[in-house]
Amino acid sequence: MASQQFEPPSGTRDFLAGDLRVREHVFAVIRDVFERYGFEPLQTPAFERLDTLTGRYGDEGDKLIFKILRRGEHEASGETDLALRYDMTVPLARVVAAYGSQLPMPYKRYAMGPVWRADRPGRGRFREFAQCDLDIVGSTSGLADAEVVCAIADALGAAGVGDYTILINSRRALNGLLQVYRVPAEVGAQVLITLDKLDKLKPDEVVGELVDGRSLDPATAEALVADLTAPDSVDRLRAALADDEEGRAGLAEVDRVIESATPVAGAARLAFTPRLVRGLGYYTGIIFEAVAEGMPGSIAGGGRYDHLIESLGGPSIPAVGGSLGVERIIGLLSAEAVTAPRLDAAITVMSDDDAGAAQAEAEAMDFAARLRHAGLSAEVYLGSSRKLGRQLRWAADRRARFALIYGQQERAAGLVTVRDMDSGDQQPVAPDQLAGIVGAGQA
Amino acid sequence: MASQQFEPPSGTRDFLAGDLRVREHVFAVIRDVFERYGFEPLQTPAFERLDTLTGRYGDEGDKLIFKILRRGEHEASGETDLALRYDMTVPLARVVAAYGSQLPMPYKRYAMGPVWRADRPGRGRFREFAQCDLDIVGSTSGLADAEVVCAIADALGAAGVGDYTILINSRRALNGLLQVYRVPAEVGAQVLITLDKLDKLKPDEVVGELVDGRSLDPATAEALVADLTAPDSVDRLRAALADDEEGRAGLAEVDRVIESATPVAGAARLAFTPRLVRGLGYYTGIIFEAVAEGMPGSIAGGGRYDHLIESLGGPSIPAVGGSLGVERIIGLLSAEAVTAPRLDAAITVMSDDDAGAAQAEAEAMDFAARLRHAGLSAEVYLGSSRKLGRQLRWAADRRARFALIYGQQERAAGLVTVRDMDSGDQQPVAPDQLAGIVGAGQA
Repeated sequence: MASQQFEPPSGTRDFLAGDLRVREHVFAVIRDVFERYGFEPLQTPAFERLDTLTGRYGDEGDKLIFKILRRGEHEASGETDLALRYDMTVPLARVVAAYGSQLPMPYKRYAMGPVWRADRPGRGRFREFAQCDLDIVGSTSGLADAEVVCAIADALGAAGVGDYTILINSRRALNGLLQVYRVPAEVGAQVLITLDKLDKLKPDEVVGELVDGRSLDPATAEALVADLTAPDSVDRLRAALADDEEGRAGLAEVDRVIESATPVAGAARLAFTPRLVRGLGYYTGIIFEAVAEGMPGSIAGGGRYDHLIESLGGPSIPAVGGSLGVERIIGLLSAEAVTAPRLDAAITVMSDDDAGAAQAEAEAMDFAARLRHAGLSAEVYLGSSRKLGRQLRWAADRRARFALIYGQQERAAGLVTVRDMDSGDQQPVAPDQLAGIVGAGQA
Repeated sequence: MASQQFEPPSGTRDFLAGDLRVREHVFAVIRDVFERYGFEPLQTPAFERLDTLTGRYGDEGDKLIFKILRRGEHEASGETDLALRYDMTVPLARVVAAYGSQLPMPYKRYAMGPVWRADRPGRGRFREFAQCDLDIVGSTSGLADAEVVCAIADALGAAGVGDYTILINSRRALNGLLQVYRVPAEVGAQVLITLDKLDKLKPDEVVGELVDGRSLDPATAEALVADLTAPDSVDRLRAALADDEEGRAGLAEVDRVIESATPVAGAARLAFTPRLVRGLGYYTGIIFEAVAEGMPGSIAGGGRYDHLIESLGGPSIPAVGGSLGVERIIGLLSAEAVTAPRLDAAITVMSDDDAGAAQAEAEAMDFAARLRHAGLSAEVYLGSSRKLGRQLRWAADRRARFALIYGQQERAAGLVTVRDMDSGDQQPVAPDQLAGIVGAGQA
């Protein structure tokens, strides 16, 4: 815990070495998966022009944007011209617009890094948090949908999240659903928004909202909710959707993704979920969401959004993408999951008096240089004690595998005492053998 | 070049894959060196409370701070409460104040990441740029000074900057210099600021400024500048400083660092430089600066600053540190210095008609999964052409090492055609041998 006065700003975190290593480990394994799929990294600035972001996230989103004051003579005006990155999608749209012909097409990119939202900080909710997106821009192929779902599944596995299910549906299947159940076109979108609450509310409550809030006739509302929540809802909906052209097209999209992703994720982790809506209105085809046992909400999600890049100011170009909830994934890992690298050698500095200190220090630095040159990690004692016991305690605190001792006796023999810090065993080693001995003991 | 309308904000950059890989490579090799020295990573938020930063960088610095508008009901007030990180040192001081007893002591940390300054953008000058700092907090030992200089030297070498010199001096040697040349105490600091211009101005101009601007008597000014610019200035200054206690202490600091760093950097790259001042007023002991042939300014620098952390609001604790000019180092590397990883396999999708497409896609995804599972990179063709020639051109564009072909003939035989994209050689391969064949050819 940080002393209050020196805490980082509300909703942000300092990452000291232990936590940072866990984060970097998760980022690295995800990056490795994405690279194997041929996705390229993209990094955009932390801030964008304010007008690039304003109006892209709805009224509620706009309020959460961190705005940067103009500078110099304009500072007193209170005007803002820049804003911190709110997500990775708007910068992607800008980049596709800016560099279109220089990008490979389809453009498969991933982006990992912080975004900033002025949300009320709370348990697990931050104002600075990492997002991890991957998208394929410029392909309408169902294979692109499958590639995104497979990469997400592989990334979850690589990050150590084994117990997940990917819920899969299609906006076209949802359109078919509205047709088949004869939901009036004018309330279709609203009905879907209500159905999206089936994972939170009781079926009765959803029926109530459909009837009272969306003016759906009670018989239709009850049939819809009953079919979507029945134990055999998948069979019921498959049968119902087969009667509608848009429904069949949606089913085909879903089946294709499930078939392609089965070798990667296993059939048991892929579930056609007819009630899956995903709130965001911009999806046009496949939609998916990964959930993990015992965790509310999702740990990944995405879908096809063929008009979004254009609506964000980019060119008219189809796209499909997904996002991993990296902060939640990191939260699932215990700090012990990623063991900190051990220090290979702690080098003591033994001298009897000030006169001998300079020589002892030069010798210690020489030993350190030999080890580091061989790719090993080494630290030299920087404290003021001349006592061996005190320096060996320092070596233990640093979790060193070996301590090096070079006192009067060793100097006379020209041999360094190498102490195994786990076993306590000691052996005399010639300086030019140090890297070999310390390196050989490496895990 | 980005289309003007979609360019990133002035002074910031989009990093597409090629440039980003060069940057990440440089960061990775530097990180690797720092870890070998036992430095720990630290990551602090992108923004700090405004009052943490205000007044820390002088009046000119204050003007360059990006300030963030308050949110919600306070937005209209035009008030700011947060500000983007301006350097890595103030956050370090805050962290040492906040987590003191939880940190190892001495605390050896490195920090790499963007900082933001509202400078006028120009050639090689950005508003968002990376800084790379390493510091040892809590040790007064000269060994700590040497560790910092050695780590900087090793990092420069690892990053591919071979042709550098580290100029070394000490504030104590400079204090001795003022004593020996009988510079009145009240103008001492100002005289040093003028002497710092010896690398930019002609000796005569510096003498002029010392006499006219600093009220130094002409004889002293001339003697000082003559000795500092003579070909044998090091010998002259060594002799002069030996007459003063503070001068001798400074010389001893310099010699100790040079002796310790020689095995790492080589004697030829380490130069006692009596005229080195480094503008920043907060240094208290050793100071150093790395310069490279043909480049104006420095590519690294640092020194001991025993009172800075306290003056920045932290506890009273000694420290020594250095900073690598990573943006300049990255600029020295050609894009070719870091070769992009080649795609291992481009997988074509061959079908005669829509009916066969689903099967062909599932097969392609299966081949991709086999390769990726073995740690190889693979992409599946996502375009709409069914022509092999078109798909092989895509494979070539993707710089793939191999293309996989699985058409009617291959399907009948149950063997995938693996085409070496460099030689054009083709061979039939059983699906379960694919990873072995493609992997064996890997560089």
